[in-house]
Amino acid sequence: MKVGIRVLPSGKALKLKVGANLRTGLIEAGVAIDSPCGGQGTCLKCKVQLTGVSRKLSALEREKLSDAERQNGWRLACHTTVEAAGEVRVPELAVSRAKAGLGMLGEAIRLLPNVQRRQFELAAPTLADQRADWDRLAGYLEETRSGAVTAGLGLLQTITGRLRVNNFKGDAILVGNEVVEIDPPDAGREMLGVALDIGTTTLAVGLVDLDTGKVMAVDAEMNPQIAFGADVISRILYMQESGEHREKLQKELVRGLNQLLLRVCRQTGRDRERIFEIAVAGNTTMLHSFLGLETMYLARAPYVGGLSRGQSLPAAELGVQIHPRGKLYLLPAIASFVGADTTAVILASKLYESDAPRLAIDIGTNGEVMLGTKDGVLTASTAAGPAFEGGKIKHGMRAVRGAIGSFHATPLEYTVVGGGTPRGICGSGLIDLVAELYRVGIINRKGRMLLPSEMETPVAPELAERVRERGDQREFVVYRDREREITLTQQDVRELQLAKGALRVGIELLMKEANISAGDIREVLLAGVFGNYINREKAITLGLVPPFPLEKVHFIGNGAMEGALRALINRKERQKAEEVAARVRHIELSGRPDFESNFIRSLELGDKL
Amino acid sequence: MKVGIRVLPSGKALKLKVGANLRTGLIEAGVAIDSPCGGQGTCLKCKVQLTGVSRKLSALEREKLSDAERQNGWRLACHTTVEAAGEVRVPELAVSRAKAGLGMLGEAIRLLPNVQRRQFELAAPTLADQRADWDRLAGYLEETRSGAVTAGLGLLQTITGRLRVNNFKGDAILVGNEVVEIDPPDAGREMLGVALDIGTTTLAVGLVDLDTGKVMAVDAEMNPQIAFGADVISRILYMQESGEHREKLQKELVRGLNQLLLRVCRQTGRDRERIFEIAVAGNTTMLHSFLGLETMYLARAPYVGGLSRGQSLPAAELGVQIHPRGKLYLLPAIASFVGADTTAVILASKLYESDAPRLAIDIGTNGEVMLGTKDGVLTASTAAGPAFEGGKIKHGMRAVRGAIGSFHATPLEYTVVGGGTPRGICGSGLIDLVAELYRVGIINRKGRMLLPSEMETPVAPELAERVRERGDQREFVVYRDREREITLTQQDVRELQLAKGALRVGIELLMKEANISAGDIREVLLAGVFGNYINREKAITLGLVPPFPLEKVHFIGNGAMEGALRALINRKERQKAEEVAARVRHIELSGRPDFESNFIRSLELGDKL
Repeated sequence: MKVGIRVLPSGKALKLKVGANLRTGLIEAGVAIDSPCGGQGTCLKCKVQLTGVSRKLSALEREKLSDAERQNGWRLACHTTVEAAGEVRVPELAVSRAKAGLGMLGEAIRLLPNVQRRQFELAAPTLADQRADWDRLAGYLEETRSGAVTAGLGLLQTITGRLRVNNFKGDAILVGNEVVEIDPPDAGREMLGVALDIGTTTLAVGLVDLDTGKVMAVDAEMNPQIAFGADVISRILYMQESGEHREKLQKELVRGLNQLLLRVCRQTGRDRERIFEIAVAGNTTMLHSFLGLETMYLARAPYVGGLSRGQSLPAAELGVQIHPRGKLYLLPAIASFVGADTTAVILASKLYESDAPRLAIDIGTNGEVMLGTKDGVLTASTAAGPAFEGGKIKHGMRAVRGAIGSFHATPLEYTVVGGGTPRGICGSGLIDLVAELYRVGIINRKGRMLLPSEMETPVAPELAERVRERGDQREFVVYRDREREITLTQQDVRELQLAKGALRVGIELLMKEANISAGDIREVLLAGVFGNYINREKAITLGLVPPFPLEKVHFIGNGAMEGALRALINRKERQKAEEVAARVRHIELSGRPDFESNFIRSLELGDKL
Repeated sequence: MKVGIRVLPSGKALKLKVGANLRTGLIEAGVAIDSPCGGQGTCLKCKVQLTGVSRKLSALEREKLSDAERQNGWRLACHTTVEAAGEVRVPELAVSRAKAGLGMLGEAIRLLPNVQRRQFELAAPTLADQRADWDRLAGYLEETRSGAVTAGLGLLQTITGRLRVNNFKGDAILVGNEVVEIDPPDAGREMLGVALDIGTTTLAVGLVDLDTGKVMAVDAEMNPQIAFGADVISRILYMQESGEHREKLQKELVRGLNQLLLRVCRQTGRDRERIFEIAVAGNTTMLHSFLGLETMYLARAPYVGGLSRGQSLPAAELGVQIHPRGKLYLLPAIASFVGADTTAVILASKLYESDAPRLAIDIGTNGEVMLGTKDGVLTASTAAGPAFEGGKIKHGMRAVRGAIGSFHATPLEYTVVGGGTPRGICGSGLIDLVAELYRVGIINRKGRMLLPSEMETPVAPELAERVRERGDQREFVVYRDREREITLTQQDVRELQLAKGALRVGIELLMKEANISAGDIREVLLAGVFGNYINREKAITLGLVPPFPLEKVHFIGNGAMEGALRALINRKERQKAEEVAARVRHIELSGRPDFESNFIRSLELGDKL
């Protein structure tokens, strides 16, 4: 059965099935709704205000919405099921992200895109002026801008008709120096671009109107390669088995991207053939896989990839469905395991123009550390990732529905991503757990889990009794019901220590390299989707980062996406990315004599440097 | 039944079928043999020396070979049928055309191709030097040459394997700034290029070793578009009927080119995937059709095409089967009906650096006239073509087997292309016929064919009686047997007058424009395949060209092909072509007030200016 839904403020009338997911229904009907987590219930961006439609609140909504919000009819569209007719008020492009040329760091990006529109009005041909169509247009454009222009076969094959149908007037759309499209005059056809971050777990896109610089929509989706391995190493292993595997992962990624582009265009009522350029950030393995390059040597010493430079390519060559002559611009990488995503974070955070030392940490599947000082930017890549994404953790999982995302020991409290029964522990939950158990004395500085008899400080009995020995190792019972137990094992703590130690030693060695101490750091920026959920205090308690004053620690969201946006919207930012990538000094940690000793010392929990 | 044939000087042993055509058999066995006419018996380039093999001389061989040649066993391979075992001595690459970097004008072209080989020996990656593969190679190449280098997706997808298999040593092959291939070190793999002239009737290619500049082979084939119309106008009409027609002609042309490339590579034992660039000349309609551009407006005032500028394109985009990342370079055109073939002729003849006035005439399907003076180059395009290619002539035909190719009146003698019974009259035969009948007084200065009673000078009775009236017009019986008559009609004479008048007025108006007279002209160059067969004296008798002293009139063969060769072998010649095309001044004849009166005066036969 279908019911009538009126969408406000547009007044658009829809018919949706009873039982349908409201977010999915709205998107399929072409209503723009911001949901960067792809409907998993983690981003909380898809809030809508209902009159009718649905009465039953989900567990997540009960947990995440304030009393006032609930009383005013606010709901999370992704967790709302259509029950009856009614009205849905959708905040215009979910306001928070759709700023006019405003990045997540809040700074306006000056509009100077690589994609440009040039109005033209040419003299019509006469016997005295027999210049060919392309020569006529190119000559005009070259007179009114600096430098030569080019055209590909597709444009040349259609130029004659396009010029004549509008009497030699119109708009030329250029990507760089190449004329890729000829629009009718005053047709008001949009000129779109996309910023793309290809993460190991998530594909995130931002759709931008390049005539205004306005970010029309931000959306995200799982990287479909997940089915072939959760981390880059497992995917590299899969790809090196055969050329077909490499091609398969490439095609899967492109398929996922095409779906995401289609969705974001449908949401905003745009035509994906009007996307003329995609600026791409991402880690090195993902970008290699996207292009179909060999990745085998990324995983073998000396860890060298095929391509680091910035690269422009026709989108059609990879099967990416945008304008037939649209381009991809891949941001440059710094070193094989310090990818274009890091370049993009440095671009977004302007770390390259730091007067006082500034530190940025991007925790995705790997942990990248960047230190900007007046003498330049240093980076280091740490093997901090797998534990933070649930890898090698007994009950570890990614931050999807059912994951314990935060934990407090006294009183014992936790939250579950998406609500409902917990199914495992994600990265932020893991950090909270170890930090809290360390704080109350169940785990000591060396990371050893203590039995009640060994505890040196008084621990509440209801906590202490959750520690037990199973087989040859100790564990802490986080959750238990009739069907399952979720535990944190001694081995899990060791894994976190390794990850934490790697990240910490990265930070310390960069500071040592720059000859500064923690006190000199003016600002600490946490980037990455993960960076949005981590608890700052607990990260410091754990010693994940040095004991910086809390007010110096800021989250910047998906910095890689932000950097890609900058490179899309302003071509000087793109030049800057090339300069940054060439000038940044990458410190290979495993090659340093002081790595080992620092690493061992960094394994200890606590906030002492 | 097959017989054994030994090929000298190589000593290669073949088995050929009795009854097979010798030229075809040799080509299919991969023996290099020069035959630019494609085996029609018009170029006489495929001479071979036989011991055994064949005894029976063809009519063409009896006519075209000297007594000495016949006595020494020389034969035309294209007109020889295999009868028995024996030996065939094939001149090395048919010597005459396969000069090392020598054009047909006899001047060596300095080797400086756009396709370049760069040896490299890179430092292998280490932990201290983790540059990506492409960055490593590109950095090396950029250090050792000026300017940035680029790479496309295909190269990036294979670079990692190619560098490692040979320990980071090898040869990079560049087309312009783009690295298109990586060869193993010291593999001696050839680096080939092709010069291509796309004529309305004929496709001609020259295969060049770009390491040495040596022309390995020259070959030609009919343009398969012939089936869709003999001249450019009929093809434009066909193409404008539908997009499918346009695509069909494009595909036919590419198919013909691919076959020709395969054949020329097989002849010379080369791999067509080692062709990295094709420099393309051709008339504007043919180049438009080759690229699949709209041609409709080329045939409508003000006669404007889609593209005149020089253009580089990936060959694969058009389906041209060379190296997968090989390029096409289209020479620039001067104006819509003054195509890249004319630019190429100017390049080949160096008309652009004429101290004293020099005239070049390229007669293909159109007649192009070029005049070089110390003040620059002028061109004009004349509608001189159709009659010269048999169009609109009652018994007209192209210069293929059976065409009357030359004619002499006293005594009456003619030659037949390829020998045998005459089937029609080709361009050179038409010129001879009209010139001779004018000389003996059967046609008067106005072009009127005279009945015996009207003739003012004594004419041999056996000639005079061949003039008769049929229906409402007069005609001259050229040939007659039981089955057929071949005649030259009054209307044919009128058509030739129109063509001759157009060409002549073009020459005169260019001279007028440059303010010079016929006596000032130092050299007259006749280009085009047709230019090889025309009789110089008769062309002057007829007034096709002004009465220049014979020693000033030279044939330069296929000047368009020669220009394409120059642009292939030396990139400064390519720059020169761009400059020439931009600077040459094209005189639009039909737009001039003095065209009409000059044209009418030029219709008269005779050598008076």
